Amino acid sequence: MASFSFVNYIKKFILSAITILLTLLSFTSNAQNNILVFQSDFGLKDGAVSAMKGVAMGVSPDLKIFDLTHEIPAYNIWEASYRLVQTAPYWPVGTVFVSVCDPGVGTKRKSVVLLTKTGHYFVTPDNGTLTLVAEQMGIQEVREIDEVKNRRKNSNESYTFHGRDVYAFTAARLASKTITYDQVGPKLPNQIVSIPYTKPSFEKGKVKGTIPILDIQYGNVWTDIDKKLFNQLGIKIGENIKVEVFDGEKKVYTGTVKYVNTFGEVPEGSDVGYFNSLLNFSLGINMASFSEKYHVFSGSTWSIVLSK
Amino acid sequence: MASFSFVNYIKKFILSAITILLTLLSFTSNAQNNILVFQSDFGLKDGAVSAMKGVAMGVSPDLKIFDLTHEIPAYNIWEASYRLVQTAPYWPVGTVFVSVCDPGVGTKRKSVVLLTKTGHYFVTPDNGTLTLVAEQMGIQEVREIDEVKNRRKNSNESYTFHGRDVYAFTAARLASKTITYDQVGPKLPNQIVSIPYTKPSFEKGKVKGTIPILDIQYGNVWTDIDKKLFNQLGIKIGENIKVEVFDGEKKVYTGTVKYVNTFGEVPEGSDVGYFNSLLNFSLGINMASFSEKYHVFSGSTWSIVLSK
Amino acid sequence: MASFSFVNYIKKFILSAITILLTLLSFTSNAQNNILVFQSDFGLKDGAVSAMKGVAMGVSPDLKIFDLTHEIPAYNIWEASYRLVQTAPYWPVGTVFVSVCDPGVGTKRKSVVLLTKTGHYFVTPDNGTLTLVAEQMGIQEVREIDEVKNRRKNSNESYTFHGRDVYAFTAARLASKTITYDQVGPKLPNQIVSIPYTKPSFEKGKVKGTIPILDIQYGNVWTDIDKKLFNQLGIKIGENIKVEVFDGEKKVYTGTVKYVNTFGEVPEGSDVGYFNSLLNFSLGINMASFSEKYHVFSGSTWSIVLSK
Repeated sequence: MASFSFVNYIKKFILSAITILLTLLSFTSNAQNNILVFQSDFGLKDGAVSAMKGVAMGVSPDLKIFDLTHEIPAYNIWEASYRLVQTAPYWPVGTVFVSVCDPGVGTKRKSVVLLTKTGHYFVTPDNGTLTLVAEQMGIQEVREIDEVKNRRKNSNESYTFHGRDVYAFTAARLASKTITYDQVGPKLPNQIVSIPYTKPSFEKGKVKGTIPILDIQYGNVWTDIDKKLFNQLGIKIGENIKVEVFDGEKKVYTGTVKYVNTFGEVPEGSDVGYFNSLLNFSLGINMASFSEKYHVFSGSTWSIVLSK
Repeated sequence: MASFSFVNYIKKFILSAITILLTLLSFTSNAQNNILVFQSDFGLKDGAVSAMKGVAMGVSPDLKIFDLTHEIPAYNIWEASYRLVQTAPYWPVGTVFVSVCDPGVGTKRKSVVLLTKTGHYFVTPDNGTLTLVAEQMGIQEVREIDEVKNRRKNSNESYTFHGRDVYAFTAARLASKTITYDQVGPKLPNQIVSIPYTKPSFEKGKVKGTIPILDIQYGNVWTDIDKKLFNQLGIKIGENIKVEVFDGEKKVYTGTVKYVNTFGEVPEGSDVGYFNSLLNFSLGINMASFSEKYHVFSGSTWSIVLSK
Repeated sequence: MASFSFVNYIKKFILSAITILLTLLSFTSNAQNNILVFQSDFGLKDGAVSAMKGVAMGVSPDLKIFDLTHEIPAYNIWEASYRLVQTAPYWPVGTVFVSVCDPGVGTKRKSVVLLTKTGHYFVTPDNGTLTLVAEQMGIQEVREIDEVKNRRKNSNESYTFHGRDVYAFTAARLASKTITYDQVGPKLPNQIVSIPYTKPSFEKGKVKGTIPILDIQYGNVWTDIDKKLFNQLGIKIGENIKVEVFDGEKKVYTGTVKYVNTFGEVPEGSDVGYFNSLLNFSLGINMASFSEKYHVFSGSTWSIVLSK
């Protein structure tokens, strides 16, 4: 009997333990994981990025600190938004991102932390930086940073480096679980400041899209046209695609490119259309720069039309 | 009785433990914390920085390794000195910095480790790199690196990469507590090689200072004039400041800027005077580059005069 | 008796434990050490490098992630090969390197992991990137990555970012011991794709070599001539060296440089010959750029002849 009840006891204990663990897991699926990823338009030539990391390590030496990029062109909020959504989905759930591209530092724009439906955190001025992340990863909750509680000690004299004094500090506290998400500050409505842009569409046998960004290192031209939209053209791998590119009303390029899976399918110097690593339609040249050759660049005025 | 003496025993034990801990803490307030921060003029295009980090990880895999910047212009000891003092105060006490800007590598300049009064360590050739750190963070102690004991094994054939063979190696051993500060090498007098420069001053209603560096990413112009000195002019936020900038004897800029807390207080394109993130007086343009517009640069020949 | 046999038992236990530990150590001398070092030609301006690191942290948060460089010129496999061999020997045994310079992404070039005789791992397309590592660090074993097992989930739609979906993922699994080296995929013959190049030689009183790379930051010219070969000229420190440099058949430079240990031995502006941090013969100017002054560059067409 004794041994029987002992076995029962163990069974019950294990069952309870599993239940508790599962419950904890369900509560912690968005839980911060000590990973902190920095993005900014500061460049790497001075000490600004390092000062932010120093502040973070002062909050908790257990943080694992990484960079997204610090080469966002100065004040380019759109590109900051694009880099976040290009990268964040590949980081584990619970990762905390800091993005400091903040032309309005010291003005009334809000400082917020967005928790996406995917369970990632974004600490940033709410100035448009969250446009694409909010749209593609979903808004779970938005909180305004309480700068009385979440601000580096003795930093009130400095008005111009919120990246160091507010964002890095708050993000480090959040990532290291020094504070909970609730303790960031008051809950805001589920919306963020959004940069307006035209969405891609299919009409009369043509797909229209924009060129949000270049793949600068190689000179490839990235559009916002995804595979589902493209497939409405009924073009198959190996077939040709008619391409027109416009800067505002001005036609900059007309041509035909071969639809390939990968550059190696054509000789060096050939123009191709392909789906990039984010699964968006892109233009490239095998071993050369499409952007340079045809003077095609990116930004809100640039658009593209594809047809069979 | 037994239980009484047992409780007493526990009490005494706890008290002793606390005493020992407090004593240890007082001894270790400058204690190294496994954090290692690298700075150099090597750039990031080759393998030099990575080789230094590899050597450090070979000393101890528990180190937490960061970069300050590796884009110090080649041989620019002054800028190396400035970047250290711009950044180090934001890192936790006990952090070990390595700075390798070493035009005299292989010559008789000393290799030293400075412990500042703030409890930070700086491992570097003593060639002027410590000028500003010593002045602003205070000299607690200086030791010369004993290159017989503190040098990577089998590295004596190489005369030109002390950053890897001596500085990274010694700094890693120090940061990881493989050696104590005393084991770095013999104690030197409390002084370092200093780059001479003119200090800012107030005279006849004018504040004079120098332009040690630009905030390159945004084109702002940073001076060495702090708030206390500036306040002797009696200028308040929102009022105008008369500014003259000289390169040697040549006047490069005369103008009036508005004194603001932050750029957002003026329209885009307006010139402002403000206190930067290091609390030094600076010149900027909202959303543009003061340096480019007015051809104002930095260095030992550049000076600035402010008046009401 | 009881206590005697107990002591004996403990002794035996300790001896067995030590034996087991030693055996384990001997098996694990090439064992992965959680250190992961990334190299690529991606640059640092977009999110590509960060996406690779995010994937790695998703595999194991215990990884210690570093960069070699991401500024390999686009598609320059030779330079990728050079940077690996310049750096890898300074990292601890067991370190896993990822190199993504992959002009043939999506074509039939193999994806491999090389284990060198020194106990370092290299994860890369087998396109010549391993040329110098294989030659100087030795081939212990080569395995082809099994892209069915070792590929990020749901990444089959993307054909163009193997760095993220295959290399970073596999390398992170290997470095964190999530998989053993055997589990990378099938063993290949002990050979890799090699870029052909002329080896340095001594003939008729002259040493001939090539200029594989520049020390770009300072403008020094690095050759592949080692000390043993150079010493056949019988030139001592402080003596002169006759130097001729050719680009193909065209003579670009003829001159005489002083053989020094280090730049500080000559006045500023003097030309020197010295052995660099990799112990290869190099040309430089104290405080200036040899490459810029004499228009000497690097690559497979550049050669150098030294004589007394």
